[in-house]
Order: sequence, then C-alpha cells, then structure tokens
Amino acid sequence: MLAATSHGPEEIRVEEVARPQIESPTDAIVRVTTAALCGSDLHVYHGKIPAVDPGWIVGHEFCGVVEETGDGVTDMQEGDRVVAAMYPACGHCPACIARDHRNCPQFGVFGMGRQFGNLQGAQAEYVRVPFADMTLRRIPEGQTDESTIFTGDILATAFTALKAAGTRAGDTIAIVGAGPVGQLIAMLAPSFGVIRTFIVDLVPARLAEAANHGAIPVDAGKEDPRDRILSDHGALVDRVFEAAGNKPALETAFRLVRVQGDVVLVGMLVNEEFPVSAGLVWLKNIQIHPVLGDPFNHREEILRLISCGHIHPERLVSHHMPLTEAAEAYRAFDAHEVQKVIFEVSA
Amino acid sequence: MLAATSHGPEEIRVEEVARPQIESPTDAIVRVTTAALCGSDLHVYHGKIPAVDPGWIVGHEFCGVVEETGDGVTDMQEGDRVVAAMYPACGHCPACIARDHRNCPQFGVFGMGRQFGNLQGAQAEYVRVPFADMTLRRIPEGQTDESTIFTGDILATAFTALKAAGTRAGDTIAIVGAGPVGQLIAMLAPSFGVIRTFIVDLVPARLAEAANHGAIPVDAGKEDPRDRILSDHGALVDRVFEAAGNKPALETAFRLVRVQGDVVLVGMLVNEEFPVSAGLVWLKNIQIHPVLGDPFNHREEILRLISCGHIHPERLVSHHMPLTEAAEAYRAFDAHEVQKVIFEVSA
Amino acid sequence: MLAATSHGPEEIRVEEVARPQIESPTDAIVRVTTAALCGSDLHVYHGKIPAVDPGWIVGHEFCGVVEETGDGVTDMQEGDRVVAAMYPACGHCPACIARDHRNCPQFGVFGMGRQFGNLQGAQAEYVRVPFADMTLRRIPEGQTDESTIFTGDILATAFTALKAAGTRAGDTIAIVGAGPVGQLIAMLAPSFGVIRTFIVDLVPARLAEAANHGAIPVDAGKEDPRDRILSDHGALVDRVFEAAGNKPALETAFRLVRVQGDVVLVGMLVNEEFPVSAGLVWLKNIQIHPVLGDPFNHREEILRLISCGHIHPERLVSHHMPLTEAAEAYRAFDAHEVQKVIFEVSA
Amino acid sequence: MLAATSHGPEEIRVEEVARPQIESPTDAIVRVTTAALCGSDLHVYHGKIPAVDPGWIVGHEFCGVVEETGDGVTDMQEGDRVVAAMYPACGHCPACIARDHRNCPQFGVFGMGRQFGNLQGAQAEYVRVPFADMTLRRIPEGQTDESTIFTGDILATAFTALKAAGTRAGDTIAIVGAGPVGQLIAMLAPSFGVIRTFIVDLVPARLAEAANHGAIPVDAGKEDPRDRILSDHGALVDRVFEAAGNKPALETAFRLVRVQGDVVLVGMLVNEEFPVSAGLVWLKNIQIHPVLGDPFNHREEILRLISCGHIHPERLVSHHMPLTEAAEAYRAFDAHEVQKVIFEVSA
Repeated sequence: MLAATSHGPEEIRVEEVARPQIESPTDAIVRVTTAALCGSDLHVYHGKIPAVDPGWIVGHEFCGVVEETGDGVTDMQEGDRVVAAMYPACGHCPACIARDHRNCPQFGVFGMGRQFGNLQGAQAEYVRVPFADMTLRRIPEGQTDESTIFTGDILATAFTALKAAGTRAGDTIAIVGAGPVGQLIAMLAPSFGVIRTFIVDLVPARLAEAANHGAIPVDAGKEDPRDRILSDHGALVDRVFEAAGNKPALETAFRLVRVQGDVVLVGMLVNEEFPVSAGLVWLKNIQIHPVLGDPFNHREEILRLISCGHIHPERLVSHHMPLTEAAEAYRAFDAHEVQKVIFEVSA
Repeated sequence: MLAATSHGPEEIRVEEVARPQIESPTDAIVRVTTAALCGSDLHVYHGKIPAVDPGWIVGHEFCGVVEETGDGVTDMQEGDRVVAAMYPACGHCPACIARDHRNCPQFGVFGMGRQFGNLQGAQAEYVRVPFADMTLRRIPEGQTDESTIFTGDILATAFTALKAAGTRAGDTIAIVGAGPVGQLIAMLAPSFGVIRTFIVDLVPARLAEAANHGAIPVDAGKEDPRDRILSDHGALVDRVFEAAGNKPALETAFRLVRVQGDVVLVGMLVNEEFPVSAGLVWLKNIQIHPVLGDPFNHREEILRLISCGHIHPERLVSHHMPLTEAAEAYRAFDAHEVQKVIFEVSA
Repeated sequence: MLAATSHGPEEIRVEEVARPQIESPTDAIVRVTTAALCGSDLHVYHGKIPAVDPGWIVGHEFCGVVEETGDGVTDMQEGDRVVAAMYPACGHCPACIARDHRNCPQFGVFGMGRQFGNLQGAQAEYVRVPFADMTLRRIPEGQTDESTIFTGDILATAFTALKAAGTRAGDTIAIVGAGPVGQLIAMLAPSFGVIRTFIVDLVPARLAEAANHGAIPVDAGKEDPRDRILSDHGALVDRVFEAAGNKPALETAFRLVRVQGDVVLVGMLVNEEFPVSAGLVWLKNIQIHPVLGDPFNHREEILRLISCGHIHPERLVSHHMPLTEAAEAYRAFDAHEVQKVIFEVSA
Repeated sequence: MLAATSHGPEEIRVEEVARPQIESPTDAIVRVTTAALCGSDLHVYHGKIPAVDPGWIVGHEFCGVVEETGDGVTDMQEGDRVVAAMYPACGHCPACIARDHRNCPQFGVFGMGRQFGNLQGAQAEYVRVPFADMTLRRIPEGQTDESTIFTGDILATAFTALKAAGTRAGDTIAIVGAGPVGQLIAMLAPSFGVIRTFIVDLVPARLAEAANHGAIPVDAGKEDPRDRILSDHGALVDRVFEAAGNKPALETAFRLVRVQGDVVLVGMLVNEEFPVSAGLVWLKNIQIHPVLGDPFNHREEILRLISCGHIHPERLVSHHMPLTEAAEAYRAFDAHEVQKVIFEVSA
C-alpha cells in the first residue's frame, strides 16, 4: 500500500509499504479515506521526536472505513465509516474509567515512533487501530470526513481547554495564537456563553479567518494586545488560552489575564520558562491549567454541536491534496503557506 | 404619591398614599421610573397571599433613581439609576455569604404583604428599599430600564434554572410553558451551549414568540410533545424545565426527560402532587431541582450578556401603560390578553 | 458444578448444573471463592423479577479467581484474584465513556434473569463474566475477599450516594434505614467530612451496629426522629439518605431535611408515591437525587480507603455459610434473622 | 489605650495611643480579648510592607467583645463575643457576591499600613472594624477565643487550599512546610477524606507536632522526600501544598506531585521563580492553584468542625503572653523559638 513515511529531518517520502495486519484481538484495520496534517506532525518532520525509525508511517488525524476487525472487537463492524481518536485508550483501566485517558498504560500516538506507543501512522492507505471499539467512532449520518475529522485531535483539545478553564456564560476570553487550535477555541466559545473573544496573532490572514469565526482580531505587530483589550473591554479578560506554544505567546498570555483569572496552556510547550514569577502568580491568584486534549471525553457533545450546525470545523480546511503530494504538503505547511491540509487517500 | 394598591380579590386601585420614609440606616428611597407586572403579582390579585392588608402597594419588578439614602448606605448615591432585586438580602449573614440569599433572615418580597417581609410594593411613584447597597444595582451605561428590569426577577430565575440543571454545551432541552420565564430560558439557552430547545405550550402566539427567540415550538393541543421530540431529535431530552406551574405541565415534563436526565421545577407550584412515583424517578434516575430565582448570584453575568447583545430581554415587553391604568392592566394580564406589561411611572 | 438456583417464589435449590463456557472473546470464567447475599436477591426470591426461568443461578456479589479468559481479554489473566462489579459494562460506548455505566447497552445484572441482561448468577462454583477487563478488578495485595467484596455493589452504592448529595466537610446527615447500605453510608460519612450522622431504624440490633460505625442511633419506634434531630442538632439536617426503600422511610426522609437540603433515594423503590407534593418540594427547595450505585466510577478511591484502614466493610458480615446451605440462608435473611451472609464457595 | 506599634525594622513598641472611634456607620469598635501573632506580621516587622508609618498598630488575628456599633450595623450588638476576619469585606459588591472577597474594593488588612486598606491593627486594647456585620462573627456558644481565633486567617487559608485543590475521599497529599498553616492543612485533611498526609520540614519539633495531628513526618534534612513517598506510598501524591513560601519548598513541591496532579501555592511568595518550566508543567499536566485564604467563604463549615470536635486548632498555640511583652514575642517568633503566640489582652 502507499504511505507517507519519515526518513529523517525534513524528508517525507510517499512509498509502497506492507499493509498492516491485525496483531491483537481488539485491533481493527481501517482503510483510510481522509487524513489531516497536524502541527504536531511537524515535530516528527523536524526530527524532534525520538525513536521514529526511517520508514515510519506518519500522521494521526484520520477518517476511514473499517476493513477488518479482531475477534475481541464487539462493536465496530466491517464497512463502518469512522473517525479515529489521535491516540488509542483501552477503556477499562483505572485511568480510563477516571476519564483520564492520557494516562492509560496503553497510551500511544499514531505515527509518533517507538517511544510513543509504537504505532504506525495514518497518512497511508490502511492503518492498524488498537482498541478499535474505543478508539473509533462511527461518523453520524449526514456528516462527512471533513466535518468530523478534527474531533480526534484539535477540536477535542479546543473543547477540553474551554472546559478546563471553567468557561461560563458571560465570560470574556483571549486566545494567543490563531493557528488551527486557536481558531477552534474561537469557534466553540459561543457554545460556552463567551461574550467577547479576543484573538492575538501576527499573521493578518489568520486574524481575518478568526474574525470570520466571530473573534475580535488583535494584531500584536500593530498594537499592544493589553492596551487594546483594556480599551475595548475596560478590563483584562477572565481566561486566556496560550495556543501558540512559544515564549512570546506565553508572556502575552500572562499580561492579558485579570486578577483571579485562568491561564490555559494549550500550545505544545517544550522547555519554555514561565514568564512570570511564582510570587506574582500567587499575588494575582492566577490559576494555571495545562491541557493535553482528550479525544474521548467530549466526543459526543462535539459531534452534536457539529450535527446541529453550531460549529463548522470543516471551514478550517484550506487545502486538499492527494497523499502522493505529502512531501510537498509538509514543506508548505512548515513554511506557513497553507493552514490545514487534508489528504484525500481513497474513495 | 400615586400607587397601585390591593383591596381584596380582583380589586386593584390607583390612589394617593403617603410617600415612604427611610426607616433603617441601610434603606434607600427610590423614585420609580418603570415597574413591571409579573405572574406572581396575580397571586396577590386573586387574594391567595395571606396578610396583604387593604391598601397594600403591589409590585416587585422595578427600575428607578435613588432619591435618598440612609446613613448606613455606603455605595448607592442620590441620582443613581438603578434596577432592583425582587427581594432584599442583607449580604452578610451565613446564608448570604453562602450565596443562598433566599434564606437570608431578612428575606421579604416587595408588595407581598406582612408575611413576606412586610414590604410595600413598587408599582408606585416611590418605594423604600432595604439593604440598598445589596438590593439595588446601578444600570450599566448605555442600557435602559426595559433592557435590565427583568434581571431582578424572571431573568435571574431563568438563568438560575439553567445553572441548576447543569446545562452544558451539546445539550437538548425542553421548556414546558411559554410564559415570560419560559421565553427567557429559551433566550438564554444558546449561552449555555444548548443545541436544540423545544418549547411546549397551547397558545399559538406564545409559541410564535418563542420561535423568534430560537426555540422549536410544540403545540400540545395539536400534537403529543413526546412523539414530536422523539421524531425530531431521536431521543428524549437531557433537561426539562417546568415553567408553567400546573399539573398538566408537570406531567408533560416528566414524560419528556430521558433516563438519567434532570427535571427543573421553575413554575410557581402550590400543592400539586408529583405526577410520577418515587419508584419511577428512582428507576429512571431523574434528578429533580426546584428553583426559586436568585436575583443576586448571576446579576453581573446576565448584565454582561445584555450589554453585549447576546440576549434582548426587552423583546419580552408587549405593552406599555401608565401607572394610572394598573387596574385594567391586571385584568388584561390575568385574562392572557397581554404578555408582559411595563408601567411607565415617572420620567 | 454446584449452584444456588431459583425455582419460583421462596424456593432456592442447590443443585448440579453445567459449568459455564466462554461465549464471547471478552468473557472470562471465574472460579467463585466467595459470594454474598444481597437485599436485591430477595426480589428474585419473592418472584418479583420477571423472566427468571426455573433453574436460573442467583447472586451478583462475588470474588474469585480467573480460571479462563477469551481471546479479547487483554488485562485479566488466569490465576488473578478478583472482585466483580454487580453488572458488566463494555467500557467503550458513549454511556461508559461518560461514566454513566448504568446506561451501557450491555447492562445486565448477574442472576437477575433474561430481562436484566440474561446473565447467570454467581452463587455457584463458576460464573461467566462479560467484559472481564472492565467488570473484574484485581484484589489489592494484602486484602481479602471479605474486605473487598462489597465494592462491587453496596459499598459503591453508598459512596455514589454521598457523592450525588454533594456531601462536604461540615455537613450533618441522616440515614433512614440501617440495613447494609445504610450502615456503609454511615461508615463512609467521615471520609466526606460529615460531622454528625443520624441513623433511623426500628431494629435495636441494627442501630447498635450503626453506633459502632460512629452514627447516632435514633429508634423511630421510641422517639420522633425529627424531634430528636432538632433537639440534638438544633436544626434539620443538610442531606438525608432514604436507604430502606419503603413508604414510611420516604416520609421520614422528607421530614428530616432542611430547607434547601438534599434527599437521596438509595433504597430500591418500586411504585411508592412521593410523600410530599411537588409544590412543597419547590417551596422548600429540596433537591432530589435518585441513586443506582455505580460499581466502576469510584472503585479505586474505595479500595484505597479500605487499604488504608479508613473503612472496614468486612465488619458488616454477620454470618458465614457454605453454599450448600443457600436455601436456609435466603430464608433466614428474608426473616431478618441475619444481616449479611457470605457464602464460602471454594478455597 | 495600650497597643503594639511598629517603629521601623525590628522595632515593636508597646505604647499608649488614642482609642479608635467609629468613623463610618458600618463600623464597630471591638475591645480585644485575644490577639495572635501571625507569620505575615513578620513582613511588617522586617519593614517589607510599604506605608506602615511609625506608630502604626500591628496585628490582624483577634477575638474580642463588641463595644460600640455605628448606625448602619444591623446585626452585631454591644456585648457580642466575636472573632474577626483578617480583612474586612463589604458583602454587597460584585466581587463579594461572587464570593471573591479578596477583590472587594474595600479590601484591606488590619495592621498592614496605608497601602493595604489604611487600617490600624488589632494587637491593642481596642480596634475599629469596618463592615462589622460582615467582618465579625459571633463565637458559638461553648467555644473559646483560642479555639476560634484562627478561623479569621490561617485556618480559613488551610481550608481554602484543600478546596482549591479539589481534595476528595481517597486522596494522598503532601504538605511542604510544617508551620502553622501546614499544621492546619494536616489537621483538616481527614475531613476531606485524605488517606495519607505526608508533611515535609527540616525542624524535628514541627514534624513531631504534625505527627500528633495525624500526618506522616518527613525530615528533608535526613532523607529525600520523593524517595520516601515513593517507598511508603508506591507513587507520587495527588496534591501538594507549598506552605513555606520559599524557593526550596517550591522545588520540593513540584518534585512530589504525580502526573496530572495539583500544586497549591499557599505560602506567601514574593518574587520566587517557578522551579520548573512551563513545558514540563504542560507535559506532566500539573494544575497550579495559588491560594489567598478567604476568611468568609467557609467560616460556618469550619466553626462546625470545631464545635463537633473534628479539629482542635487551639492545639497550635504554643505560648501565651501579655500584650506588654509584644516586642519580645516578635523577636522570639522571628527566631523560630516559639510556634504560635497568643496575646491575652483584656479579660
């Protein structure tokens, strides 16, 4: 079968590889119809994820059709149209029962190499899916791959972030970073009763898109976000979402939150220091909530919001490409030339 | 001054009475600019509230201007434009600190007679307001009496009801009773992430209005609400709000809620029996939440929703009348000829 | 193998039956070491549960050793000492992921006949356990069958009840009914910060036992519980747990709760009417929470409380009997001659 | 009257000053019977608090008798025995109604100078108390000054910290710093269902005292706290309370918390940096909750825990001294020679 594979820094190849097989009775094999390119795939692209052997298949956001199931799969059936969670979870361990799926001993991300679960990726014609009954969700009737594919990763992350912050009717929020996750937080905000959503970025196109999703764009290259918010809103905001994953965004986030507010860390941080002292956080009483998205906990609510047309996550898709152009897609995505690429893999 | 007073069942008079005076240092005297006619005023009108002496001034929803303050009032000042809570609360007792203002020992409702706090009502040119710093809220700049008057009673009740039910993003709800409180629940529902709001009533005009607020109207005279919801939504709803305060509505409410759902009692019930057994409630695991609106707890959030244009409670107002026509207003309101009457009292 | 089976009202036999086999890949066969006799087994005993065919094996509280596992079982292994949940749950459906295991489409109770999941019971030498990875939990090292067996049913119910009521540090509670579930609520109450636990019953021996667990016994045959509580505590209680499942207990429960308090329905109610009107519930603002215990949600917390010696559920066991005496055990339990019987099945 | 006053770094004098007078109608004058010396008083002692003019009266933990009330005081009466909150709050502003008393515009701490509310302190024979109905609480019958004095500050802080962390039945916690607040967290932990409380310090006497309150003492001078906890408990703890307010304690706190756990900042931090990167906090998903104690929110629950004997905060008192020895008391307290000093001011 055809698959996009990693061969070291900045080298993605599309090549013929062996089709995956059922390895455990709770596995399913899914024929991929659509796969997306995610910001965290760039960490693989740049060679920052350890133990990604040459030829490892990449990608973790995908939809498809169930092709085959192991004997222990009781719910999913051949022919089901499905959307996958970015990481499998067993469903029955203490962590899963406590809805803390990230700490399931079976945790692993598709396409992230041997150290993150030893799972091949999904930018391929077929993919092996562990704990298929849990990891896969049938696509609701009337919905498409594009409208549901983000429930497995970035849309779940956006929803989890708003929940973690305790967002509620009447709040004003700021999002620092207008990438895909930031855009989705903006898109979801009205469903949490948010009355004003400021979004801060440096790229006019991203800001323009966020404005389409109802956010108030703030170009940090042209004005000080704190001044702008104070002037528009008369106060700092209740909750801030750092959705860029870098030091300047982190600094901005702490500058925008009111006393006794919440800062949510959504961006993929590595070793950035806190831009404020513990003393200041204590004095201003700022709650800090790191968020690693959970694709299971709110899957049903999110699908209902989509089905009723309250959110339109497919509007995030900027480019469609065939899988054969994966190398070019990674290059263009890394160069910020495209926002969200969807690979159309099979019919 | 002029005031609308009760003189026994179905007799409201507008007459000259003495102007109220400061009685306690925490009192204020408010010159009423606008007062509303509320469903619960009809209980006084029909003589169902004990200890409403002949000549008692009626009404508890009002806006006005602070005319005079007692020595213990530290925040409110002469000339402030204010909206009042329907009942005063001291702010400092254990119940108030626990945000359970209804159990404040100082509880009493304006215009409800000697047994409910011994407070004269607000359908008058002036009213005495105990614990003025707590009971009154300055009207935000840019807002009107009409846009804010309901924060003191029915809008607070609607908001409290949605909170009490644990309403959250992705829910589907049903409201039984499309009176003012039901309409406001429908209006607020999107700010709680509700994706579908069914509203059940028998009066086409009320249903048409609810449709304008985004709800799906269900005419119980023409179709079975349960069948309709099952057909439209494919399931019973997550939360049901009984907002009519009568036996048939109560029955409908329990028929519309899903297993493990919530029933909220918002309507003013008297001695109606439960239409289901405790056994059935246990088996279906239905949580029951009675709600007496709290005009203090969510005042700020509600005012922000109004200020940002997320809700437009003034759209509820169907008639404006001078206070001199109070007798006619009560008659028409009781006959369901008008929905929500606003008395324009002074300029 | 030997099993206790139902043969119509009041007829339990111990007889030889066929050993269960793996039927689905997610099944396990457990060799039962200990089984308990539960109040709800009496509903089978009295013939009140439909579709319990003659010869149906009874019982749903048990511990044992894993004897065999299906191919789809990934966690449990032959030889594991385990305690079971009273009902299986798949772990991966929307209800399970939402921690609402009672609404899993695979719901069924062991030993309750064809209409409740079509599962044979556990008062037998062997039992087939669906979704073994979820339904079974390894017994922590150092713990015994007796100390853990109740985590699968009544102890989970007691814990869920305290959670559902929102019990918190500084509360005073009342339990109506000093049967096993009531005793366990009393035993758990200090771990929720309860400062005073009143327990109401008519049987002196039960009250004496509850006193050993730290509760204040109130003999409803000798004094009015409401008077007693008002005299001892100076107020009605914050939360009341109806743990008897009958009309008089229900009446008592509503008489003991304070305004704005919580009533939890824990007892197995059938068609008992509410002893109060919806109007009174609204006026007193009493929240009503029915509880069907969930043996999954708090299993870990409960096992930790046991392991650290904060609770000693094994103290509930009043009698040990061999399985061969099951018929006599049912008779004596039904006659209130014994409190909690444990069958010792195999070594 | 006699008062302990500040005269620059390390100089406390006891001198004759003018008796305070009612300044606002919501004030009361309290005759102080007991005042305590608190860790934060040392900040004044060391001259670290700005705008503490020479002669400023110090101290903010106190009990006494109401001597006189302003005209706007409606609840407190002359002769009431009372315990005070460390800071006044008006009770009626949006922040107070939202139970966020720390952000009341009237916020100020007794004895902390002109910048923190311009309030004279309570280590004196008399003290003026703003918003007396809110700031003062009658001492429950049967209780003493000593058993209740800490509800106004450090006991409220300890309770708030356990709440903020989401502490619940079955948790294991660690406290870093066995000063008064740390001791009280340990004392309260069982009322939150905590099963194991580790407390870390370097001072054997403090650790011995914590052991008396049920905590497991860990001497950080003799063993690595992380090793000790892993060895005793088999895992890192669910929640950690930094209660020392310094850099090494902060480092230890982040070393002891499990993945997806909570770190609560209770100690008075100034400008200490975070000892971990934002990246690590994100990866380990550690929630960070700063806590400034709120003496109002849980006053009733805490007083009930005291009245029922679940906690004995008076056991914290190590020394009683007359007010005339205040200078010596500050010196000894600063030198860690005494733990908690109570001044006996008047009979």
